[in-house]
Amino acid sequence: MQRYSERALLTDLYEVTMLQAYYLRRMNQTAVFELFVRRLPDGRNFLVAAGLAQLIDYLESLRFGEDDLAWLRECGRFDPGFIASLNDFRFTGDLDAVPEGTVMFADEPVLRIRAPLREAQFIESRLVNLIHYQTVVASKAARCVIAAQGRTLVDFGLRRAHGAEAGLLSARASYLAGFDSTATALAAPLFGIPVAGTMAHSFVQAHASEADAYAAFAQAFPDNATLLIDTYDTIAAARMVVPLAHWLWEEERTRIKAVRIDSGDLGALASAVRGILDAGGCPDIGIFASGNLDEFAIAALVAQGAPIDGFGVGTRMNTSSDAPYLDCAYKLVEYDHRPLRKRSAGKAFWPGAKQVLRRARSDGGLQEDVLALADEDQPGDGLLQPVMRAGKPLAAGPALSGIRARVRAQIAALPPALRLLKATQPYPVRVSEKLQRLAGEVDAAQERQAAMDQARWEQDAE
Amino acid sequence: MQRYSERALLTDLYEVTMLQAYYLRRMNQTAVFELFVRRLPDGRNFLVAAGLAQLIDYLESLRFGEDDLAWLRECGRFDPGFIASLNDFRFTGDLDAVPEGTVMFADEPVLRIRAPLREAQFIESRLVNLIHYQTVVASKAARCVIAAQGRTLVDFGLRRAHGAEAGLLSARASYLAGFDSTATALAAPLFGIPVAGTMAHSFVQAHASEADAYAAFAQAFPDNATLLIDTYDTIAAARMVVPLAHWLWEEERTRIKAVRIDSGDLGALASAVRGILDAGGCPDIGIFASGNLDEFAIAALVAQGAPIDGFGVGTRMNTSSDAPYLDCAYKLVEYDHRPLRKRSAGKAFWPGAKQVLRRARSDGGLQEDVLALADEDQPGDGLLQPVMRAGKPLAAGPALSGIRARVRAQIAALPPALRLLKATQPYPVRVSEKLQRLAGEVDAAQERQAAMDQARWEQDAE
Repeated sequence: MQRYSERALLTDLYEVTMLQAYYLRRMNQTAVFELFVRRLPDGRNFLVAAGLAQLIDYLESLRFGEDDLAWLRECGRFDPGFIASLNDFRFTGDLDAVPEGTVMFADEPVLRIRAPLREAQFIESRLVNLIHYQTVVASKAARCVIAAQGRTLVDFGLRRAHGAEAGLLSARASYLAGFDSTATALAAPLFGIPVAGTMAHSFVQAHASEADAYAAFAQAFPDNATLLIDTYDTIAAARMVVPLAHWLWEEERTRIKAVRIDSGDLGALASAVRGILDAGGCPDIGIFASGNLDEFAIAALVAQGAPIDGFGVGTRMNTSSDAPYLDCAYKLVEYDHRPLRKRSAGKAFWPGAKQVLRRARSDGGLQEDVLALADEDQPGDGLLQPVMRAGKPLAAGPALSGIRARVRAQIAALPPALRLLKATQPYPVRVSEKLQRLAGEVDAAQERQAAMDQARWEQDAE
Repeated sequence: MQRYSERALLTDLYEVTMLQAYYLRRMNQTAVFELFVRRLPDGRNFLVAAGLAQLIDYLESLRFGEDDLAWLRECGRFDPGFIASLNDFRFTGDLDAVPEGTVMFADEPVLRIRAPLREAQFIESRLVNLIHYQTVVASKAARCVIAAQGRTLVDFGLRRAHGAEAGLLSARASYLAGFDSTATALAAPLFGIPVAGTMAHSFVQAHASEADAYAAFAQAFPDNATLLIDTYDTIAAARMVVPLAHWLWEEERTRIKAVRIDSGDLGALASAVRGILDAGGCPDIGIFASGNLDEFAIAALVAQGAPIDGFGVGTRMNTSSDAPYLDCAYKLVEYDHRPLRKRSAGKAFWPGAKQVLRRARSDGGLQEDVLALADEDQPGDGLLQPVMRAGKPLAAGPALSGIRARVRAQIAALPPALRLLKATQPYPVRVSEKLQRLAGEVDAAQERQAAMDQARWEQDAE
């Protein structure tokens, strides 16, 4: 049996019903779909695109397994010829996309699929599912990185992430956005991400005394122990760490790496604990903070000068709690060489296969983006690049280290106001004249068609 | 290779580091942990417990695969004897839990693990991950069910759910909370949940005309077609559906089931479309609405009498967008027969193995819950029931139909104010005198121990 996350039926049923309707009408000309975000969440100035590596895996491995076909036969609403046709169903199309770690804005396509209609349509649900979530997390995590101003950041969020895949992929997305490591162990063998781990309150509780717990942990992980000091009384625990640290050094030549504070007024406690450790001759023991942190809490602690060396950031980053979803859409922009768009209230989009041209100033800072037709000759760097052709990746994907470097460089190149944690004047994204003209033509053609339709049906009805 | 979602390393690294420290100290007496929610999200009056079936699967199948052990060996920080001991690591403990679909309140344990310390500790991360997410979704979905007052509800949220498992498990959690079906196809073969699906805007766009698209779909799914009518102009599309419906009936004896509106002022459009369909002799064509819906939007549409027969509810339910996480914790309450708790600021909890006793009035309505020690003799129905003993489930889990019935009955038994969509006077959860006394004793014992510790370390330091 396939992994459930790789089953073709991990999709919306309507992808299958539409496929059957296309099959019965023999519709399968070339379609172009694009994925974009309609508007940024409140308070946000940019997105960080992520998830492309997992999308490529999905597109390469997409096939209906015997389990999937058996269910389609059993459920009684599908045509046998149609079901048989799914035996050979593969993704054979082209994918163009912005590289992972690219900073993006509203209305800009992050990827473009050009494929036979049925393939391009069917992949919608899982494609959005994969790109949306990692983009949500990378965009949130990048804000934490900005707020932390160089302090260590560790992803702590597996337990309250929304399921297994969210736990794993948020470790990846936060790392590529600039986090230093994750607590999620499986992210190390699967993605090569550094992992970090300390102890839980239960570890302190289970020992006969807090000092016993600290000694046991330090002896199990010489030179690498971070001790959790807020189980009972943070200040009293810090006072106990001082003689323990000296004893461990003198008896066993072992150092304590850090202490962790997970509750209370983190800034005030960190200052008091720093004072106790320094006065006790332990200036090398670091202070790590965790507990309900996000970019706002981190920025506040940094602004007040709290002596905190690193932050464990969990739930609020992994669920992107203030903006847990993006208003994104995967839309048909061309079918059989005919550019298209819909006009639904508040949900119109730009027709035709497009490109984003990014223009920089002479100092390397970003100046503006232009949303244009893919075949327009416009100055600027085209963000969408060829990734797959005829269903095959053109090259191995970039290493996570390269993606991290891209995020760093792109955020550094943003106009400074866009790096603030509150919404500011949006980054300028201009729509080319040719694209604006095309949109008007597409709407006019659709209106003519609708009028003809209406007339025909009214005539039929008479 | 195991599925990633079943790998033992899908856990926080600290679960492994603590295990090594326990191994080296030979600590493995019986521990009792409980999972509870510290406080309800803003605006919420109750939770619906969910996820137990997936937790049982996890506990039964937990083992370190060769891949997991290989990584532990490679990463260099673990003791070879410890790693070898993980070869035989299994969950051999007891699980008591409230049945899925039980209505719960703050501070009440939803489950209790009693097992050798290492097992009880190690399972923490994935246990919380599994119970937390489904409880988040079931609690949100139950509010949508209350708001919909009997109208059909369909889960539409796979694409913006946080990953594959979230998509699948939110289909399950929303169905058990009372949704009628899901659009996520794989939920049918995996969980036996009814699935529903219509068409996307792209389907309308790809056809030469809107009427062609509708005819193609109706012919592919006779008597079962729901037509999406907001791609260009909702009112014009509804006017076209009337003659099309008559034509389909006269030519092919096929009925159109419903139309779907996905944008704009859903209430006003539904009224207008209802008028057009009724005036055109199509009173049997239903109206289905979708687009940014949650319990508040549904309640507003129902209150204004919008003629909507069913709602597709996606992103805001699957991400629980107004409360994407619960402040839940899995805490050690007893070790080696010693009751325990921590006292961290704002994060204290009740010590000892506990039970929740639920008391009903003579009319069946809920009166109050009592949080008591598990061995107290208190009136009321004990919510926590034996589920696993010595690592094995005691019985097959209940069918989803039974869980749905439980949710319905429990929500019907709530004091009416608690069924409102805004926060109200909290449901009374009393803490037994014996439990309050025990908490005081545990704190006093810990303080004595801390004082002894402090004195000893200060002496050592001199």
